[in-house]
Amino acid sequence: MIKTNVTVWNEFRHEKNDPLVRSVYPEGIHAAIAAGIAADDLEIRLASLDEPDHGLPDAVIASTDVLIWWGHAVHHEVRDDIVAKLHRRVLEGMGLIVLHSGHFSKIFRAVTGTSCSLKWREAGEKERLWNVAPTHPITQGIGDYFELPHEEMYGERFDIPEDGKPIFLGWFEGGNVFRSGITFERGYGKVFYFQPGHESHPTYRDPNVLRVIGNAVRWAKPVFFRELGGVRYPALEELRSAAH
Amino acid sequence: MIKTNVTVWNEFRHEKNDPLVRSVYPEGIHAAIAAGIAADDLEIRLASLDEPDHGLPDAVIASTDVLIWWGHAVHHEVRDDIVAKLHRRVLEGMGLIVLHSGHFSKIFRAVTGTSCSLKWREAGEKERLWNVAPTHPITQGIGDYFELPHEEMYGERFDIPEDGKPIFLGWFEGGNVFRSGITFERGYGKVFYFQPGHESHPTYRDPNVLRVIGNAVRWAKPVFFRELGGVRYPALEELRSAAH
Amino acid sequence: MIKTNVTVWNEFRHEKNDPLVRSVYPEGIHAAIAAGIAADDLEIRLASLDEPDHGLPDAVIASTDVLIWWGHAVHHEVRDDIVAKLHRRVLEGMGLIVLHSGHFSKIFRAVTGTSCSLKWREAGEKERLWNVAPTHPITQGIGDYFELPHEEMYGERFDIPEDGKPIFLGWFEGGNVFRSGITFERGYGKVFYFQPGHESHPTYRDPNVLRVIGNAVRWAKPVFFRELGGVRYPALEELRSAAH
Amino acid sequence: MIKTNVTVWNEFRHEKNDPLVRSVYPEGIHAAIAAGIAADDLEIRLASLDEPDHGLPDAVIASTDVLIWWGHAVHHEVRDDIVAKLHRRVLEGMGLIVLHSGHFSKIFRAVTGTSCSLKWREAGEKERLWNVAPTHPITQGIGDYFELPHEEMYGERFDIPEDGKPIFLGWFEGGNVFRSGITFERGYGKVFYFQPGHESHPTYRDPNVLRVIGNAVRWAKPVFFRELGGVRYPALEELRSAAH
Repeated sequence: MIKTNVTVWNEFRHEKNDPLVRSVYPEGIHAAIAAGIAADDLEIRLASLDEPDHGLPDAVIASTDVLIWWGHAVHHEVRDDIVAKLHRRVLEGMGLIVLHSGHFSKIFRAVTGTSCSLKWREAGEKERLWNVAPTHPITQGIGDYFELPHEEMYGERFDIPEDGKPIFLGWFEGGNVFRSGITFERGYGKVFYFQPGHESHPTYRDPNVLRVIGNAVRWAKPVFFRELGGVRYPALEELRSAAH
Repeated sequence: MIKTNVTVWNEFRHEKNDPLVRSVYPEGIHAAIAAGIAADDLEIRLASLDEPDHGLPDAVIASTDVLIWWGHAVHHEVRDDIVAKLHRRVLEGMGLIVLHSGHFSKIFRAVTGTSCSLKWREAGEKERLWNVAPTHPITQGIGDYFELPHEEMYGERFDIPEDGKPIFLGWFEGGNVFRSGITFERGYGKVFYFQPGHESHPTYRDPNVLRVIGNAVRWAKPVFFRELGGVRYPALEELRSAAH
Repeated sequence: MIKTNVTVWNEFRHEKNDPLVRSVYPEGIHAAIAAGIAADDLEIRLASLDEPDHGLPDAVIASTDVLIWWGHAVHHEVRDDIVAKLHRRVLEGMGLIVLHSGHFSKIFRAVTGTSCSLKWREAGEKERLWNVAPTHPITQGIGDYFELPHEEMYGERFDIPEDGKPIFLGWFEGGNVFRSGITFERGYGKVFYFQPGHESHPTYRDPNVLRVIGNAVRWAKPVFFRELGGVRYPALEELRSAAH
Repeated sequence: MIKTNVTVWNEFRHEKNDPLVRSVYPEGIHAAIAAGIAADDLEIRLASLDEPDHGLPDAVIASTDVLIWWGHAVHHEVRDDIVAKLHRRVLEGMGLIVLHSGHFSKIFRAVTGTSCSLKWREAGEKERLWNVAPTHPITQGIGDYFELPHEEMYGERFDIPEDGKPIFLGWFEGGNVFRSGITFERGYGKVFYFQPGHESHPTYRDPNVLRVIGNAVRWAKPVFFRELGGVRYPALEELRSAAH
């Protein structure tokens, strides 16, 4: 079996600095996700901000099929040159799954071209995610909806491009709605943004959340990798009108 | 009458360095476009690469409703900080019209999030642009199609996002096709990419091309300017499930 | 001033048969809407199911710029030949605004090509409609959201095509979400579906609802009317490869 | 292996009435397609207009996973009740592949909701189909483009909805362009329109055309079949504002 190479990237600061978060994810959010989606067809590696090259040296980027991204407080510390490499790799075919507060990450704003701004509220309220794409690979095994007892509210207007295909629409107890699961295609790569995952709730231990992320990994797996660039191209038909 | 403030930006190097281009556009491509779309409802300024701040100091950016962009050979010389300001201004509402070889400009790649790569051929062949959006404001006054006797070929696959709404589809004598007119929305701003305009042909003196650009200026005019950012938002309903 | 000809169509049965509905809309839902959007630039007519040709003889269809449609209990009584004429007229340019339970009308299912099925609950609960397209003509004058104290719940998954551009996303007190305002383009015509308007609540006296409908009328106004059909077309270039 | 049940439907009149067409497809277009895409994972049946129920009795419809449709001269002879059953089955999950002149078929116009009008020319000219979705399952095994030496020209503007995702863009020798391969989703079903296939050319013996159709069958295979209808739905949250 050819395995899919998944790299789970985490800012990995809250778990070190905040006792509450550490109590929820002592192993780190990235490790929790990796454990939660572990399967025979996946080869999973971890990477985080404070490693050399953020744990994403060229060899790791080149051998990653799907990159999962969780960041929050220090998006600005992520090096621009690494973001540029990741962006190029997405366009060449690498899958990208951006989680929760990663909406404001450099890599997500780079692939969308928008501000990705939204409303938010840390109140640990109930969220219900409605499945609006029941035939999509990402929602297989999910029913009409699933609930999270405590989540950070993310609310519309979410500033993303119109080609964001809605997979989940979120209902929040406090009165807001959100496009909580959205797919994009960029270059030859597939992108999925998934809203759940505040650091102070055990969201990445929820079986529905893990199923969605696992499904998304298989969906985002590259069809191929191919470089993109301008190509000088010969005429395929005789040019009778031509003038330089 | 409240006029629409249009800034026409040009790399403005070919006209200085290449006698052929100078013979076609002695006044500069930007000045040719400005003259060609001049109208009572437009206040048009010119800007170019070699001016201080590329002719785009903060006061100009802040007072521009629609920016027209022509660049080609030295996209890399455009300062990143100015591109970032332009990008932010598009998201806040400024219209952006990107012409021809501007497909590879930093600002267009920033708003699309893609490589914007394509096939190309400088053979001065015939292009026919088919109007596929006859009710769109940009095509008013244009019939089923219009022709350009000599254009640079730009061919598919054009690497742009799926929300690019096709306005014109181009047919090239040498056997290629292209999405020659495409609109996007980003943030509160509107974006139009228009393929015609190789520097060695008098494309920006063609009445159909000028009409399309003029229409696009009116279409891309801001509805409003508004800053975009994350907003902490109060609960609108009582939170009974909440837990921090 | 050239006025826009608006025809407001109503099934107009509940108001006759149900005392509760009659107490809310003694004049009929169509008359309430007409009064609510009345303006100098609009010429508004009423039509209803039990009139000859449902109040939509050929002359009325031919002179209608924008048709507003409210139906609910007896969609099946609407004659297929009249639906076919309305459908053709939308494709030729006529605007169409479909309200509330009109989601299951023959004309809306004809233009979407889908079942338009959804979840529903008649409990008179609170709805909050979030404005997700603040630069769109339909939302001008509407803030981040508006509320309706009592509405019928319509919930996802709403079976509509993917080109339905979301204008409003609805939050319902009972835990559901809905694409409560959606636009489509079909042929040369524009279509707006707007969810609010259960017959037992005075929704069509709400100033925000009326503003949205009024905005939608101006947005859906035809750019032109033009017949659609296959066109035998001459070759524009010499055919050297041709063989019959 | 669970096989995919494919039904290839053909009007099957030209082959009987026109000696030229009979010489190209003596076995019928449907049989040529069936032979061309035959594979171990497919169970293929044939059906045609002049059979009882057009060869599409309820049992056939109920056991068809993917329906391929070729019609041309007598779309009006296809019974409306059968079209309604096919349409419902597409919404419930059945894949639909519409070929060439089937653009004007009742079933394609029903699922699109548009006129599907276009320009056309029977001159047997060269067509080149550009692959604009290289990662899509339908284009696997196809390069940048493929050519057909002789095809009927179908040209823009093609009156289809905006959610038609372009897979192929066609270049015609006589100067036209066309969205020659387009996908849609309707209900739980997938739809592919593919332009090549004029009855007087052996297009359905071309290996690229057959590969595309075969790919499309696998892509359009149902994820599941599920009935669509309005669902009365209980409140999931306590309703405190409710009023009937």
